[in-house]
Amino acid sequence: MSGIEIVTSSGQMQEIADRLRREGKTISFVPTLGYLHEGHLSLMREARRHADILVVSIFLNPTQFGPEEDLEAYPKNLKRDIHLAEKEGVDVIFAPAESDMYPNGFQTYVTLENLPRHLCGRSRPIHFRGVATIVSKLFNIVKPHTAVFGRKDYQQLAVIRQMVRDLNFDIHIIGGPTVREVDGLAMSSRNTYLTANQRRDACRLYQALQKAQKTAAAGETDAVRIIDEAAELIGSLPDADIDYIKICDPETLEDVQIIKEPVLMALAVKIGQTRLIDNELLTP
Amino acid sequence: MSGIEIVTSSGQMQEIADRLRREGKTISFVPTLGYLHEGHLSLMREARRHADILVVSIFLNPTQFGPEEDLEAYPKNLKRDIHLAEKEGVDVIFAPAESDMYPNGFQTYVTLENLPRHLCGRSRPIHFRGVATIVSKLFNIVKPHTAVFGRKDYQQLAVIRQMVRDLNFDIHIIGGPTVREVDGLAMSSRNTYLTANQRRDACRLYQALQKAQKTAAAGETDAVRIIDEAAELIGSLPDADIDYIKICDPETLEDVQIIKEPVLMALAVKIGQTRLIDNELLTP
Repeated sequence: MSGIEIVTSSGQMQEIADRLRREGKTISFVPTLGYLHEGHLSLMREARRHADILVVSIFLNPTQFGPEEDLEAYPKNLKRDIHLAEKEGVDVIFAPAESDMYPNGFQTYVTLENLPRHLCGRSRPIHFRGVATIVSKLFNIVKPHTAVFGRKDYQQLAVIRQMVRDLNFDIHIIGGPTVREVDGLAMSSRNTYLTANQRRDACRLYQALQKAQKTAAAGETDAVRIIDEAAELIGSLPDADIDYIKICDPETLEDVQIIKEPVLMALAVKIGQTRLIDNELLTP
Repeated sequence: MSGIEIVTSSGQMQEIADRLRREGKTISFVPTLGYLHEGHLSLMREARRHADILVVSIFLNPTQFGPEEDLEAYPKNLKRDIHLAEKEGVDVIFAPAESDMYPNGFQTYVTLENLPRHLCGRSRPIHFRGVATIVSKLFNIVKPHTAVFGRKDYQQLAVIRQMVRDLNFDIHIIGGPTVREVDGLAMSSRNTYLTANQRRDACRLYQALQKAQKTAAAGETDAVRIIDEAAELIGSLPDADIDYIKICDPETLEDVQIIKEPVLMALAVKIGQTRLIDNELLTP
């Protein structure tokens, strides 16, 4: 394909995918909420390596936001997104209208029983239902061979992997590494909400994770001690409100008390009104 | 393809579907619980007309049976099913093991918010979740262009159509007409449960629907009167226990009081231990 193609109709996207597949081409896919940053671009580069054609979706999915959350405030700039995607050699942008994705009478959801009970799912009860539903829809529209999701949204990646396995989506899921600012803050479209002071403090989240990695590597096996240390570091920030800091099984996301093998340390912290998440694997 | 192919692995089925699609072949699909009868065979003939390759699945799906229901008793005969399918020119039978479809840790379900609140969903609360989930899985494994479902399971057909629309499955859904025994009883694998006396009485369900059609055609617009008439006819049978007799909107399945346009009359009746369902459109 030459030049970037902007597709807004799901039917047209399916026709393009069918044609590409008939031609023997492989499709890789990066779904996004838009307002692209370096984290998304790195996922695109990863996706690029796995297939002939790279499709990126830009859709601010309302069903994954709770009623009290930041759907309305979420930053948008489709023109800028298209420009950035074009520079990365994206072949197709799929940017549907909300009314096309959720027409009147919409009532079907993809739900997981266990993974959403943990971490972010506790304070965002409908979030992963919304994620699993929109990703199922996008998979059926884009028909990719491979899809790439960021490891920064670790629980989302776990949910998608489980859903793909359970519903037999014939799609290879790849987790892309977290891209960080110079001071370690994980890139996120939500970072734009931060004031200058909050932005300066926000790097402490990653510092806490790094410190935990060191403590675990030095032989500490008590998860509570490591969590307390992180809570102290983050809790001392003036605007920080800790949603959770957890050490858990990287597959089931269930709490781990004694660290015997690699575990996931994940946290969600509100800095002012901005909810930030981050995670790292700790290896004993 | 020559001769019938029996596939038990979902991965192998996906490979076959991919190869067929790359060759430009179209696939039609009839999912079944097995124990095939003339109703299934008529769906296969319908499916045959819409595609190059006909795939039939045989899988007694446990997640659509409630704990008190007849999963254990449900009749099975894979050898006979294969023989019947072969005679109908089926190209591929997909007959997976339960452990392949629901491995340990399985936790993802497809749920609908509204359609399952009506008719059979009221007494079978997890049934349509099980149906939507297994059909989603089978769609992702068989990758059909067209799938055919019987209109005898009207609510199931409505659920599948809604799910296909909501989750953007790129699959054309066809409803096949109900096939009846000589006396009018809708064909069902569950008819084998009936004793001779029950079997003789069971045709009253269809007679009640036919009578309702005549009453509506003659100008009766009061749904309750038509329902009462049917309830009287069926209620007089010694072993009959009416689960529901409803007149409803054919799309939303919501109750209709005054019949102004074509409506669905649907009923579920237990004859002894055997739950039978049937339905007809009433046209005023």
